[in-house]
Amino acid sequence: MNTEKMKEFEYFFYPKAVAVIGASYDDGFSQALMSTKMKDNLFLVNPKYEELSGKKCYTSVLDINDGIDYAIIAVPAPLTPKVLTECIQKGIKAAHVFSAGFSETGIEERKRLEDEVKKLTKDKIRIIGPNCMGIHCSKSGLAFIPDASTEEGPVGVISQSGTVAEQFLTLGKIRNIKFSKVISYGNAIDLDCPDFLEYLADDSETKVIALYMEGTKDGKRLKLELSKAAKKKPILALKGGMTAHGSRAASSHTGSLAGSPETWNSLFKQTGTLQVTSFDELLDAALALTHSPLPSGKGISMITNSGGFSVIETDSCVKAGLEVPQFSEETTRELRKIVPIAGTSIGNPLDAWPIYYNMPGNPGTLADAIKIVIHDKNIHSLVLHFDEINYLRRFLGDALEGHLKELVKLMISGCQYARDEIGKPVMICVSLDAYSEDEEDRKYHLMVKKAFENGGFPVYSSLNASIKALFNLYRYAEQLCKEDHICVR
Amino acid sequence: MNTEKMKEFEYFFYPKAVAVIGASYDDGFSQALMSTKMKDNLFLVNPKYEELSGKKCYTSVLDINDGIDYAIIAVPAPLTPKVLTECIQKGIKAAHVFSAGFSETGIEERKRLEDEVKKLTKDKIRIIGPNCMGIHCSKSGLAFIPDASTEEGPVGVISQSGTVAEQFLTLGKIRNIKFSKVISYGNAIDLDCPDFLEYLADDSETKVIALYMEGTKDGKRLKLELSKAAKKKPILALKGGMTAHGSRAASSHTGSLAGSPETWNSLFKQTGTLQVTSFDELLDAALALTHSPLPSGKGISMITNSGGFSVIETDSCVKAGLEVPQFSEETTRELRKIVPIAGTSIGNPLDAWPIYYNMPGNPGTLADAIKIVIHDKNIHSLVLHFDEINYLRRFLGDALEGHLKELVKLMISGCQYARDEIGKPVMICVSLDAYSEDEEDRKYHLMVKKAFENGGFPVYSSLNASIKALFNLYRYAEQLCKEDHICVR
Repeated sequence: MNTEKMKEFEYFFYPKAVAVIGASYDDGFSQALMSTKMKDNLFLVNPKYEELSGKKCYTSVLDINDGIDYAIIAVPAPLTPKVLTECIQKGIKAAHVFSAGFSETGIEERKRLEDEVKKLTKDKIRIIGPNCMGIHCSKSGLAFIPDASTEEGPVGVISQSGTVAEQFLTLGKIRNIKFSKVISYGNAIDLDCPDFLEYLADDSETKVIALYMEGTKDGKRLKLELSKAAKKKPILALKGGMTAHGSRAASSHTGSLAGSPETWNSLFKQTGTLQVTSFDELLDAALALTHSPLPSGKGISMITNSGGFSVIETDSCVKAGLEVPQFSEETTRELRKIVPIAGTSIGNPLDAWPIYYNMPGNPGTLADAIKIVIHDKNIHSLVLHFDEINYLRRFLGDALEGHLKELVKLMISGCQYARDEIGKPVMICVSLDAYSEDEEDRKYHLMVKKAFENGGFPVYSSLNASIKALFNLYRYAEQLCKEDHICVR
Repeated sequence: MNTEKMKEFEYFFYPKAVAVIGASYDDGFSQALMSTKMKDNLFLVNPKYEELSGKKCYTSVLDINDGIDYAIIAVPAPLTPKVLTECIQKGIKAAHVFSAGFSETGIEERKRLEDEVKKLTKDKIRIIGPNCMGIHCSKSGLAFIPDASTEEGPVGVISQSGTVAEQFLTLGKIRNIKFSKVISYGNAIDLDCPDFLEYLADDSETKVIALYMEGTKDGKRLKLELSKAAKKKPILALKGGMTAHGSRAASSHTGSLAGSPETWNSLFKQTGTLQVTSFDELLDAALALTHSPLPSGKGISMITNSGGFSVIETDSCVKAGLEVPQFSEETTRELRKIVPIAGTSIGNPLDAWPIYYNMPGNPGTLADAIKIVIHDKNIHSLVLHFDEINYLRRFLGDALEGHLKELVKLMISGCQYARDEIGKPVMICVSLDAYSEDEEDRKYHLMVKKAFENGGFPVYSSLNASIKALFNLYRYAEQLCKEDHICVR
């Protein structure tokens, strides 16, 4: 991206001062920006109020004496031409039109209104939107939901849908995914997905790009920018409207013409974009790609405490495109030395419950087991499934917390050895049901989850999610091999 | 099932007195049975103790004066022949061998031990196990985990894996699934899956049967019993070991020969068994089948508050095998009367956020919208997605709880109309992330979840789960149509 263009984008991501036009007592933008470092460079505009949240409220953006880089426009759609005219007059370079009620309604009059805005702003002010949430930038303090994390991180998001963009922030905070920028671009009358792709590809704060889109106005340019960006960093994409009914829903949502599924599949394939099929897969893969080395093959080992689930999950692994190979004879021999016989099978998955729980009297620990397994030449990555705190709780009573801390230390030391010394990916699953109301159980599961997160590991609440994320790591490794950029093998 | 056979099973499910042989301070069976009505008919046996949990502890089962119907054997594998000989001597008719360390270890000596037990008990005492959790029966108070629900319910479970059986109970309690019987049968040296199928098919307490199996010793009999049972009630089956690696894992777990995936697929298809591919799908389908009428077609309507997610989830519906058809002109016209324009699309899915949140000033409510949609002839079922309590919280502050209660009442009245007056299935999704630590958010989500559960609706924490469950309802309806038993169309 050339310097001039980059500078234009600086107004969007790192504005020195921001005006919220149409601010009110309960608008999310004012609330969000009042809670970040942008607070002191924030100007509120609404002729209805003299003051909002202890800040002076201006009648028009023209009444503000300070220079404004970026305007957030949250007035009813029919008022946007007037407000944008004032922004241009004020010399503002970048505007985000939050307001909905344009072409996406399918109503002729509203399409004309969108055209009017387009014409009015062309070459005078750059626009993101309308019908979108705009920009979240952790570093500058731009935000669009009040309770989002302000921690900076490596994931850059470009989303055509506002609620999908919001969900990135909401779930990211819960699942330990941190963002450089989250961009919701909506109807895209000016800046569109390819523009933001171009920007994020060169953005040094962004290590992985996650896309949600429903259509494009310029397939050729999208293809070009995907190709260019994919050479620089991993791109994950979820395309909404990949079925006839979904495509109809997309058209009524963003007015997008969705194109055929085959066209999109081949676009993603040709450009080196990793296409995913659900929002959870998108989040989970982003977490893995920013928290793990890449695997050098598809052989995984699972360490679990359940024979039944290890069979089910082996099927899931294989269906996902991975392999759960047998351990080498040496691995089996070494494991047999530390795993007691009854109720355990020395195989892959390793259902090694007595050492899994670190009960006294075993000749080895879970850390030892991990170290043995990770040296197996057929094993390229590890999934450690932690579950059944209930089981320990029954036996240990008050001693649980201490025992658990010790056990977690052992597990983390084994996993760190696998990742840092041997260079193989480790995915952690700390199983927890969304509806669980056993507060003690939740407390301990979350304690284990955070311990692994502090160790820098990707943690998932279901084994299926861990497996799918690992498969996406493998896909990316394979793609790098094919493209001969870097081959981890 | 003939009367004599039924009587044999009564000893397993409704024993008058139970002995736990190998009881100790921390064994799960004693703990579990001490917390149910079986407590007063429970006898503990272990020569090491004189008393356990305030109960007399016997040296041998032979020292008990009372009659015992059912023995739970939790001694090390090599001691089981001695203990079983005593059980036979005592005249006990039914025994559950919990002990592991038999053929499933793959060790020759342990296989011989299993054969010895088999020979010793043949025609003298009926056995469930070894290497299994045995029997949970809500009505009689039999239990194998201490914290399981003792509420009676319509789902009967047969599981080859002990941890899978435990997970049914643990997750069932969390997800509002209640059980008649949960059977974990392990190595099956005597009673096997077909025996329990035969029993549950005739059990009036059981309305739906859920199976987990890894293999069978008698494919012909399994086929026969599946066919017979499937004519009486829905059977859901998850087969572990459907891939080469999974099959190897199954063989090392239960010693099962798994058979080819094609053989199993056709077995399930021919017998009218609804095969599922994950444990969550199994649970979710069981919940739907016991909490909903059947759909008369594959057309669904989704009511959501997010355009982006409704596009993604429409794709998921179609991929799952359902349809999200356009509303009829009349439906659209009626909806337009009550749904404001900006930011909403009058289409299916219905992204009707202003009425969704029941904000003041709308000409209609969510209940009205549901009533309009459910009359559409192309719509055979409804998925209502409730999310974003966060959004309401921002606007309403302290008024949230009251507002939410009112909103839930409206939603439930609409959904009850759809289900009870019109007879169409309604699936509820109350989105919640497993790792969410926003306690207020969790509280309100769980409040909404329980309100719908109290209304008798199946509730799921993800939209994908709701869709998959609905698809399984549809599969069952289709199957009934084909078999000409009952056709809901």
